[in-house]
Amino acid sequence: MQITNSETGKYPILDGINYPSDVKKLTIDKLPALCDDVRRFIIDTLSQHPGHFAAGLGVVELTVALHYIYNTPYDQIVFDVGHQAYPHKILTGRKNIFSTLRSFHGMSPFPNRDESEYDAFTVGHASTSISSALGLAVASEKLGRHNQHVIAVIGDGAMTGGMAFEALNNAGIQKNNLLVILNDNHMAIDPNRGALNDYLLDITTSKTYNRVKNDVWNALGKFNRLVPSARQFIAKVENGIKYVVMKRSNLFEGLGLRYFGPVDGHDVVHLAQLLADLKNIPGPKLLHIITVKGKGYKFAEENQTKWHATSTAFDIETGKTVKSTSTKPQGPKYQDVFGKTVTELATKNSKIVGVTPAMPTGCSLNIMAEKFPDRVYDVGIAEEHAVTFSAGMAAQGLVPYCNIYSSFMQRAYDQIIHDVCLPRLPVILCLDRAGLVGADGATHQGAFDISYLRHIPNLTCSAPMDEIDLRNLLYTAQLGGKGPFSIRYPRGNGFNPDWEKPFEEIEVGKGRQISDGEDIAIISIGTIGHEVSLALQTLGTEGLHPAHFDMRFIKPLDTALLDTIFAKFKRIITVEDNVLQGGFGSAICEYACDHFYNTKIKRLGIPDRFIEHGSPEDLYKVCGIDSKTITETVKNMLKE
Amino acid sequence: MQITNSETGKYPILDGINYPSDVKKLTIDKLPALCDDVRRFIIDTLSQHPGHFAAGLGVVELTVALHYIYNTPYDQIVFDVGHQAYPHKILTGRKNIFSTLRSFHGMSPFPNRDESEYDAFTVGHASTSISSALGLAVASEKLGRHNQHVIAVIGDGAMTGGMAFEALNNAGIQKNNLLVILNDNHMAIDPNRGALNDYLLDITTSKTYNRVKNDVWNALGKFNRLVPSARQFIAKVENGIKYVVMKRSNLFEGLGLRYFGPVDGHDVVHLAQLLADLKNIPGPKLLHIITVKGKGYKFAEENQTKWHATSTAFDIETGKTVKSTSTKPQGPKYQDVFGKTVTELATKNSKIVGVTPAMPTGCSLNIMAEKFPDRVYDVGIAEEHAVTFSAGMAAQGLVPYCNIYSSFMQRAYDQIIHDVCLPRLPVILCLDRAGLVGADGATHQGAFDISYLRHIPNLTCSAPMDEIDLRNLLYTAQLGGKGPFSIRYPRGNGFNPDWEKPFEEIEVGKGRQISDGEDIAIISIGTIGHEVSLALQTLGTEGLHPAHFDMRFIKPLDTALLDTIFAKFKRIITVEDNVLQGGFGSAICEYACDHFYNTKIKRLGIPDRFIEHGSPEDLYKVCGIDSKTITETVKNMLKE
Repeated sequence: MQITNSETGKYPILDGINYPSDVKKLTIDKLPALCDDVRRFIIDTLSQHPGHFAAGLGVVELTVALHYIYNTPYDQIVFDVGHQAYPHKILTGRKNIFSTLRSFHGMSPFPNRDESEYDAFTVGHASTSISSALGLAVASEKLGRHNQHVIAVIGDGAMTGGMAFEALNNAGIQKNNLLVILNDNHMAIDPNRGALNDYLLDITTSKTYNRVKNDVWNALGKFNRLVPSARQFIAKVENGIKYVVMKRSNLFEGLGLRYFGPVDGHDVVHLAQLLADLKNIPGPKLLHIITVKGKGYKFAEENQTKWHATSTAFDIETGKTVKSTSTKPQGPKYQDVFGKTVTELATKNSKIVGVTPAMPTGCSLNIMAEKFPDRVYDVGIAEEHAVTFSAGMAAQGLVPYCNIYSSFMQRAYDQIIHDVCLPRLPVILCLDRAGLVGADGATHQGAFDISYLRHIPNLTCSAPMDEIDLRNLLYTAQLGGKGPFSIRYPRGNGFNPDWEKPFEEIEVGKGRQISDGEDIAIISIGTIGHEVSLALQTLGTEGLHPAHFDMRFIKPLDTALLDTIFAKFKRIITVEDNVLQGGFGSAICEYACDHFYNTKIKRLGIPDRFIEHGSPEDLYKVCGIDSKTITETVKNMLKE
Repeated sequence: MQITNSETGKYPILDGINYPSDVKKLTIDKLPALCDDVRRFIIDTLSQHPGHFAAGLGVVELTVALHYIYNTPYDQIVFDVGHQAYPHKILTGRKNIFSTLRSFHGMSPFPNRDESEYDAFTVGHASTSISSALGLAVASEKLGRHNQHVIAVIGDGAMTGGMAFEALNNAGIQKNNLLVILNDNHMAIDPNRGALNDYLLDITTSKTYNRVKNDVWNALGKFNRLVPSARQFIAKVENGIKYVVMKRSNLFEGLGLRYFGPVDGHDVVHLAQLLADLKNIPGPKLLHIITVKGKGYKFAEENQTKWHATSTAFDIETGKTVKSTSTKPQGPKYQDVFGKTVTELATKNSKIVGVTPAMPTGCSLNIMAEKFPDRVYDVGIAEEHAVTFSAGMAAQGLVPYCNIYSSFMQRAYDQIIHDVCLPRLPVILCLDRAGLVGADGATHQGAFDISYLRHIPNLTCSAPMDEIDLRNLLYTAQLGGKGPFSIRYPRGNGFNPDWEKPFEEIEVGKGRQISDGEDIAIISIGTIGHEVSLALQTLGTEGLHPAHFDMRFIKPLDTALLDTIFAKFKRIITVEDNVLQGGFGSAICEYACDHFYNTKIKRLGIPDRFIEHGSPEDLYKVCGIDSKTITETVKNMLKE
């Protein structure tokens, strides 16, 4: 069933809505119908244009209620992460470009200050919203804008991130009117893990109250000795305790925020009324709402992890993926090479454990978790803890594979230095989503990791060019005596369906020659080497034959190989999918300078700006690291 | 009064103690006397050898009790930060080298796995202990070492760091027997700030219970109508509520840890008994002890911030600093140049605010806080939040100076990228303690910041060579339109007592020539330029006259100046107090390569390893960035 967004009368209320001012014109009883329209609009659009699916469906009512009650953009709503911001985008002037989401030059995947004044803060990484919103709210106070409201919308997953706690700890003691809305669906991308999740479930189900009641009961001894008039009194005591316990035992009240809730996050009328009341309550406060991720679309409600994001078109009626027609044989996803290989290694090496900060499905550590549930640790959205926790396990002789996306590993930069590399603990840091990730855009590009890792002492930094190398690096890293070891690899699929070969140790710090040649040496690191291979094919048809070297290791550099290359070639091109500043090519320049090599070096890599969203192919071109640019660079260099 | 540690009979119990096994031989009633000895030993030693003073005095009893009860080093104690580990070091084989603390090749300033098997984890930065200890404890379980105990000792200050919360959230759901000891003295280096501190104070003083009792009272209405027999009942209810509330309303219990306390942290006998009991209780648990920072030394108890660390010898009787005899006129501390200048700027620019993660005294933002208490935010030990909170304030038009030591700014690397530089928010990042800090050693060297900042798009990176430049960069940064702006400067004193000159704007991205010369150009960044000046003096006496350029900006580079330099000089030396990999010299190499300059470049900077503790002078030599090495490098290069 194909549905187009322009189908007449399909969204009777939403058709009249372009901005929050239009929402405000509705009577409150029309809000549920608007929610229905927004929900259908999202489902219809995403059935053809993939994107973050389930989170937005969970906050349709909240978003409508927020824009109904608050005076945006003067009042400021900060969405944490931003997966859930589609309804917000639809209601704030971006309905008509919504189908361009995540495409090159199309609508941004996350809230972005550059895209809309309604996006109070640029987001993408988890757990930042309370900090930034507190900054906005404290500034409002400072600037005398007492009628300006600031709201942070944060999921229970993001709430496990340390900086959310740092911000709560700070919010409780400062003059501000911040409203934190805790959107509690017990999910991150995978089910939320951690004591906080248990605690929230506990509040939600009133287990706390019942437990406390029983404790009081026991503390008081048996009651059947009491006179009947006392029974009435006990009833009163119970109510008193209930009131007090639910309020005082509250984690957030403990941190100085007034706590409201939990309430049904899908009752838009009640939410609107509640928000209208909360507007008048000064001071920092937290509203706890209960929602269902994927709400309103059966298949998403039933499998929330799968429907967190869609990557292809799907049939609305059946929930089934519309198969792409391409029949080109494709390699496995790199993440699956990781997941399967680590599971295989864990079978042989009982010391191996896996650690992920809330990304078991995203990094395919779920494959190992299925086979070895007791050896995989999902520590919640907590990159800092994930790395130092891994270091602790390594200190006891375990072999932790700690898998964190390149852009999120930025969070653990200090821990890598201080807790892993300074004490030389053999943690294996696996950086998935390194390089250009594509549609997730600027916040998610793994553009910096070579630059932020290669200057850390004691760390081996590697990047495989293909699936087999990734497999063998994962194997090599656990062969004792290797110390801290990092492996970066990209999002998406490789090229080699036949990758599950017997393990081979890769000598640390040794690169390899992919093809011999003349005049120019191209030195690449990681899977971007495939663009070099493509360029060489084109150049070969024109009779040009540069040599190609895959360094495999950014650190230690294969200096013997470099000496050979510098001795033979007077022109070198370096290629990487990392920023040029301080990156792989920079390391080659340093080496050339340190050894006074008089060689022309042209560096190709990500330029010194944030790279927007688009397909990886588009972005390779934008950055000049696609095969065509490599081809042209070779030709230009030969002319010089 | 001069006291030597070897004075006969001065430490009658401690004299017989070298290792924890000796402590265990004592009868429990001897422990208070041992504590007295340890305390006096610390005071006596530190009166002559400066170091972290007050924190250790606060945990003498705890440390003695821990080693009395637990089987270290098999049982593992992780100290958070490690300021408080001196008693631990004294009791674990390091009494006789204690007076070498913090000196070159002397005892390490913090626990260090390389120094002693009793140091279960290498520390120095705050809030890591629960993560690493949880790793140790979970591994113990996994490895079947059910009799191995792991203890994390963490202060209430460090508990405000996000990763401590991430670790607690994770501890509550995993199989482990971790004991977290919360050493609550209501202090970080300065008084602890944040809602958590209020909460802990609240538990300690039983305000919670009283507040709850009143709430129940009010909820129940007036009681004088009740029959006398009910009064007895009420007493029982009260006890019940007290029990329940103190237990259930507990933040830590909310996160799944059993909570014990609060107890007096200076009653060593009771602590030992309590720890013996806790040993037998499985699962994660938290013991809350109340201590006094600086306990047992009057002057330290009275001024805990001042006595956090001593920097000179002092007279035990009077607490007065023993003046050093040097009369060389000295410049101000760089931190005071920051503190005074920002205060002066804030007087003129009402938008300026100051942000510090628990370091108001350390970075001299206390100077501004005295004059503008409402414009300085101490957000607790929370670097991530500090930066994003600043970004939020900048988004509203305020001008935040966010001051964080270089090594601690590593914690906020992702926030600088994601929340400051991507949205181009004009936060002024001030990195105190950049470069080699000296006695605090490997964890505290500001060795990496040039490398981790210069590859971030949209960020201006600067480093003044002297006090006047620092002052003018601080002035320049707030002159509108500058975007994200970083300024790095070192620990310690400058050279120019006459630095408070009228403000002058410094053109962004412009370096300067310090002295003209021939044959060789030395290009330096930051205050290490003084070593270049010293080298030039020496070289001048030998008739050698290299030119000297101070780049002031790592980013943007002054490419016009570089072009001039490369045109004139065929030999260049770069000097920086940052790691060579990806640092300032690396940027110069990149530029030279990109423009095919055929120039010999020799880079001086911190080598690719962690640099130990010692005096800055010692460490400059170790790293080869002292004036002597610069002099020799010039001579060697001229010979080539």
